[in-house]
Amino acid sequence: MQKAQKISGFPEWLPEEKLLENKIIKQIKEVYESHGFVPIETPAVELIETLTSKGVVDKEIYGLRRLAAAADEKDAELGLHFDLTVPFARYVATHFNSLHFPFRRYQLQKVWRGERPQKGRFREFYQFDADIVARDELPIFCDAEVVTLLTKCLKSLNIGTPKIRLNNRKLLIGFLKGFLIKEDSIPAAITIIDKLDKISAAEAENQLVNIGLDSKAITSLLEFAAQALNGEEFARFISSANLSTDLAVQGTEELLALYNFIPENLKPLISFDFRIARGLDYYTGTIVESQIVEYPEFGSVGSGGRYDGLVNNYLSKPVPGVGISLGLTRIMDLVLREKLLSLPAQSTAKILLAIFSEDERVRAIELAEQIRYTGIAIELFPRQAKISKQIEYADKKGIPYVLFVGEKLELKNLKTGQQQEVNSPEELPKLITGP
Amino acid sequence: MQKAQKISGFPEWLPEEKLLENKIIKQIKEVYESHGFVPIETPAVELIETLTSKGVVDKEIYGLRRLAAAADEKDAELGLHFDLTVPFARYVATHFNSLHFPFRRYQLQKVWRGERPQKGRFREFYQFDADIVARDELPIFCDAEVVTLLTKCLKSLNIGTPKIRLNNRKLLIGFLKGFLIKEDSIPAAITIIDKLDKISAAEAENQLVNIGLDSKAITSLLEFAAQALNGEEFARFISSANLSTDLAVQGTEELLALYNFIPENLKPLISFDFRIARGLDYYTGTIVESQIVEYPEFGSVGSGGRYDGLVNNYLSKPVPGVGISLGLTRIMDLVLREKLLSLPAQSTAKILLAIFSEDERVRAIELAEQIRYTGIAIELFPRQAKISKQIEYADKKGIPYVLFVGEKLELKNLKTGQQQEVNSPEELPKLITGP
Repeated sequence: MQKAQKISGFPEWLPEEKLLENKIIKQIKEVYESHGFVPIETPAVELIETLTSKGVVDKEIYGLRRLAAAADEKDAELGLHFDLTVPFARYVATHFNSLHFPFRRYQLQKVWRGERPQKGRFREFYQFDADIVARDELPIFCDAEVVTLLTKCLKSLNIGTPKIRLNNRKLLIGFLKGFLIKEDSIPAAITIIDKLDKISAAEAENQLVNIGLDSKAITSLLEFAAQALNGEEFARFISSANLSTDLAVQGTEELLALYNFIPENLKPLISFDFRIARGLDYYTGTIVESQIVEYPEFGSVGSGGRYDGLVNNYLSKPVPGVGISLGLTRIMDLVLREKLLSLPAQSTAKILLAIFSEDERVRAIELAEQIRYTGIAIELFPRQAKISKQIEYADKKGIPYVLFVGEKLELKNLKTGQQQEVNSPEELPKLITGP
Repeated sequence: MQKAQKISGFPEWLPEEKLLENKIIKQIKEVYESHGFVPIETPAVELIETLTSKGVVDKEIYGLRRLAAAADEKDAELGLHFDLTVPFARYVATHFNSLHFPFRRYQLQKVWRGERPQKGRFREFYQFDADIVARDELPIFCDAEVVTLLTKCLKSLNIGTPKIRLNNRKLLIGFLKGFLIKEDSIPAAITIIDKLDKISAAEAENQLVNIGLDSKAITSLLEFAAQALNGEEFARFISSANLSTDLAVQGTEELLALYNFIPENLKPLISFDFRIARGLDYYTGTIVESQIVEYPEFGSVGSGGRYDGLVNNYLSKPVPGVGISLGLTRIMDLVLREKLLSLPAQSTAKILLAIFSEDERVRAIELAEQIRYTGIAIELFPRQAKISKQIEYADKKGIPYVLFVGEKLELKNLKTGQQQEVNSPEELPKLITGP
């Protein structure tokens, strides 16, 4: 006999949990569609050269290999995608002439990373992305729109207070350059800033010394990175900051313009946070992360940013893009661990059809079809059993009503215990209440 | 610059095609849920020992390997699943104590097979399954219910006449045993029967000789396998057939009982077809395939059967199951190739909000939010442009209305050209018509 064990890092939900996940998916989809976004889907695999372009950390990629491949067959050229942005950029290039720009798409798919699993980190997980790409020029309004989507989605889930943390790569790099940090130390400095939430100040200082920063630069950098400002504070920061590079000035201007295009009622959820750096190399402007204020330890539940060069890997024309990615699996993990939302029943049926003897099954099958035709989901108890057994089954599965098929039709509400005669299937929709 | 090529065997749809696929998914999901089935999802990967149990052809499996794995790291234990039945059986065993039986689940996921791609065959494709498993005993009513689901789903798609082809492994094996075919030649004989639709009679005869059948057995077998009977013909066949083994008799009785539990209006779509054998080894009773009568060359668009032993790989108790699998990707391929359904627009927005100058953008953002609140999906043109350009954009994307934000609000119907004043966002839902 084999073991039926779960594989570490590959989450799997119970049916009632999956029903809840579907409900969350529907909510997010409705927000995306309310802004005119269309769905796409890419294969789970891409050519490995697609995945490893733009300096992405390739140690996380799973390659594919046919089990029955001959020993001398050359190694797999295919790998599982580790995010949805890289495949999306490739998709835009592949289908360039069939898409209308600015192109606004959403995409819900699993991604895979061969990381060591830990709390809140998975090797297989869902991302739920929304992006806008344009030909030639993509206005800052689009950055604001995807940040708005992220904020609205997190707000609509009703699982705590969303906090949207904004930064801009130009501001960050411009700031670093202002301290005469060497060009080739900048990626390493960004990586360290990206970890500031997770490591101690001493550890950060140590790492910054190692990449060659002097103590004045380190002090300024840590002071800068400690800031988390609301809209008003950010406006004050800009007017008083002595930003020494054009790039940094451009970054602050973009952030200010973005904030101006956020709907008024969402602005209180937005903050400017210079610790936000984003690990992935393809971001060029706006960067955003988010958390649920009540559960900071769960980390970012949605993030994204502006990538002006990603589609250009394949095309000779500029196709700038901006997007966000909701960490659906991490959100589910948070919701289930902290019991933030109530779980539905383990059935989609509203009625269990109970029969007294097998002789009535054929008639009950036809009746069930008539009832489904009225829009009510119904299950027919599959075998000969005592009525008490059939009621018990409905109760366990959370099916709220039992309909007895005898000489008359009788409907029992399992919650109230009330029982009433039903003259025809058409009467049922108004007798069945609840979600 | 890299190439942005499609990978052969890994289909990828345009946004309007994906919207159509989502519509089909919704239709199938509604049929499954109307019978009380609940969704589950398993990881894309299973332990390779799970995938290769029950004599499944392992040459089709893709194994996983971390690209950055050390040379001496042992080979991947994980493989991508090639169907949803094997992972489902493992899921039932893993979560046995959290599920209520009979357990009825549906599951929509991609599966992967490292086959050479050809027309209608993919290396990555969606299956959309529905199965019932029970403890101890699973009544034949459940076989009838999943066959009913398959029939209703195909009928609801409105892409041609579904033909449901039934057989039973017990009848097939009992029949073969009746000809004193050696026990260990039976799997090979089943594989040949499974191919009868695709190979010539001469080729079939040749292959049957090769596995050791004598000419009398071959004649009887080919005669038997040539039969496709409707319900009445099948009843006649049973009463006159001289079935020489108990197993064959049991198989016919199961088929007859199943047919009796099919809703009357679906019976004309059902046929008994002794060519249906199903390649996979885990089936033990009912087997079913289906096609669209008008497109026989597309092969089976949905299939399944009874598997009494699959969950028992992990548990010491009997947990029989029966289910069907719709070939969603193959259906999509058929629909798109033959243009069987019309494609939606490349946008989910009903209205494009057009502005005359950038000064109005902040006001338009707030207005768009108010309109979304009434349930209408709306997109705001992202940059400064002539009004004619904005209308052209809406037209290309298939957005049916443009709302001009000036001193007054004016709504233009792009189809009729009609334009009218709108006093407040709340008026819009009744002014917007169409799907």
